[in-house]
Amino acid sequence: MVRLPATLMRGGTSKCWVFDADDLSMADDRLDEVLASAFGAADPRQIDGVGGATSTTSKAVIVGPSREPGTDVDYLFAQVGIGTFGVEWGSNCGNCATAVGLYALQTGLATPGDPVSTVRLRNRNTGVRLSATVPTPGGTVPELGSATVPGSSAEGVPVGLGFASPGGASTGALLPTGDSVERVDGALATLVDAGAPAALAEAASVGASGLETVEEFAALVPRLALLRRAAALRMGLVGPDDPVTFAVPKVGVVAPAGDYVTSLGVPVRADAYDLAVRMVSMHAPHPVIGLTSAVAVAAAAMTPGTLPAKLAENRPLASTIRLGTPAGIVEAEVTTDHAGAIDTVTLHRAARRLATAELLVPALLRESV
Amino acid sequence: MVRLPATLMRGGTSKCWVFDADDLSMADDRLDEVLASAFGAADPRQIDGVGGATSTTSKAVIVGPSREPGTDVDYLFAQVGIGTFGVEWGSNCGNCATAVGLYALQTGLATPGDPVSTVRLRNRNTGVRLSATVPTPGGTVPELGSATVPGSSAEGVPVGLGFASPGGASTGALLPTGDSVERVDGALATLVDAGAPAALAEAASVGASGLETVEEFAALVPRLALLRRAAALRMGLVGPDDPVTFAVPKVGVVAPAGDYVTSLGVPVRADAYDLAVRMVSMHAPHPVIGLTSAVAVAAAAMTPGTLPAKLAENRPLASTIRLGTPAGIVEAEVTTDHAGAIDTVTLHRAARRLATAELLVPALLRESV
Repeated sequence: MVRLPATLMRGGTSKCWVFDADDLSMADDRLDEVLASAFGAADPRQIDGVGGATSTTSKAVIVGPSREPGTDVDYLFAQVGIGTFGVEWGSNCGNCATAVGLYALQTGLATPGDPVSTVRLRNRNTGVRLSATVPTPGGTVPELGSATVPGSSAEGVPVGLGFASPGGASTGALLPTGDSVERVDGALATLVDAGAPAALAEAASVGASGLETVEEFAALVPRLALLRRAAALRMGLVGPDDPVTFAVPKVGVVAPAGDYVTSLGVPVRADAYDLAVRMVSMHAPHPVIGLTSAVAVAAAAMTPGTLPAKLAENRPLASTIRLGTPAGIVEAEVTTDHAGAIDTVTLHRAARRLATAELLVPALLRESV
Repeated sequence: MVRLPATLMRGGTSKCWVFDADDLSMADDRLDEVLASAFGAADPRQIDGVGGATSTTSKAVIVGPSREPGTDVDYLFAQVGIGTFGVEWGSNCGNCATAVGLYALQTGLATPGDPVSTVRLRNRNTGVRLSATVPTPGGTVPELGSATVPGSSAEGVPVGLGFASPGGASTGALLPTGDSVERVDGALATLVDAGAPAALAEAASVGASGLETVEEFAALVPRLALLRRAAALRMGLVGPDDPVTFAVPKVGVVAPAGDYVTSLGVPVRADAYDLAVRMVSMHAPHPVIGLTSAVAVAAAAMTPGTLPAKLAENRPLASTIRLGTPAGIVEAEVTTDHAGAIDTVTLHRAARRLATAELLVPALLRESV
């Protein structure tokens, strides 16, 4: 009987099943089938597998040592289908990256230092390079910590997630079309490639305020799905004959800061942050913001002429941008090089190992009978 | 470091984390805290634990050998909170019982026979006795099978789940108030105790048809929560000073069979079944029907004078009742003794082992540091 080893990690507000690349090497040519089977992807509630049946809990990463000098760990991110027996490979996930950093230290894939360890990661989906910095006093890797992230009161191990030279990893340019603002599918948008490719529409141009609750924002998802498709074509991420994907590019709206109330009922004043953001995750509103989307918005905000830069031009610190998301404020630190290019975007996150497991995967069991 | 062994099982349309009683013996006096911590119950998305954040995926069972003659396995069912750091212990779960039967055979807690094995179970929450019958050709316990249940296309190992003498396990009587129909909180209802205590309202008396989709039925949940509280008091399950629970009794509506379309879009004709049923699960419509609720409805249907008996009086087979649920038809076989008392209610189900695991539970980790 084949049992597939896997570790369930929380990274920020996502849950990710982490697989060792060695354990999946026998299934290299059919990873989609094996992951979809393990997660129970065919069922919209993923009842026959280990998936969580939401976009933030239907995620897998395949992790192994990197062969690249200067990089410790390579990982491949999979957004596993929910009600669809398949997997999307087109995007990265920052929450899972924080989990991978901690996992690498906990499993010995990376060697802990003292008092902190920095794991250098490469995302194989997009080529993005990241670093995960974890406190490891005395070289000991913690299971618990007291760091939190917007969207959850749960505590975890603090992980500083740095995106190095994030511009253009997927398309070759921070602004893939060369324009800082353009009209896409009838909306004003900035198309940016940093962390992940993203299409950021001006909220007003799609009839939104950017201050919507998650429930209110759900009504805009179909409109933004059309914009995502148009942006995917414009950015050269897909061709006209390729099937529609729901993961690439990230899509959402940006707006000037305004007063709103978070999903947990906490009021947020306009002067507490710099830019309102509401993002889509697959087929639904994102309850917070994807980390790679946060990098894209932050990088755009540092790039003159883009919508995020214009709408957040009154922020007090040039190197920091505070994003107002449905769950609260996400802060990004951006460093630039001498030429003004984006050097690193860093987000303060939390992660935790939830369980180690062996999965009974029908697609693997059937052939071993 | 304390790691808590656990096995993730699918039972029908539920996912249940199964714990060996021995592994939790060190936490006997604080099971609520340990399970809530393992599941991440405090967060409404259970993001910091292994819970699935829905009523059908936030379930645990604690399993051990029974000391009772004639019983193989005892199990205790826990409905773990979602957005509430706590656990409800007041009810049984038939889906988890099917999982426990298979788990007992797979782990050696019960000895497999040839060609089938019957595991005799006792539910410690309610005192209900059940049997789980699994095909075990040559004494081999399968990991896969081709049985399905309404509400999911996923295949699993067939499990025949029998509820022995189900009447009165919680309250001492099949009809705890002595009445077969009564007015409760302004509705006409049958209060029955079989499998689990249940309050079954006539759909028309609460303004429903009993043919609602899950989405439509959601509007009736607040009304039925009030009825559940009134019924809990009337059945003696709680006292007036006890807190409101959302698990006990089961509550829902029954109605004459009518044409409807299932959640998966399949039309169901009125003549294909005997009684329409729409049940509540905690705070939301149940997508199918809980198995213990199915037993309660079936037992009531065999008991003259109750609402299910009156509304399903034209069923073709006296020993079988076909329940029309939002996901499709659930069929129950009922045997009675010479005196006409309910002997056994049997439901045909499916189960599968999804993963074996060790959980990193903050409540246990904190004290071991």
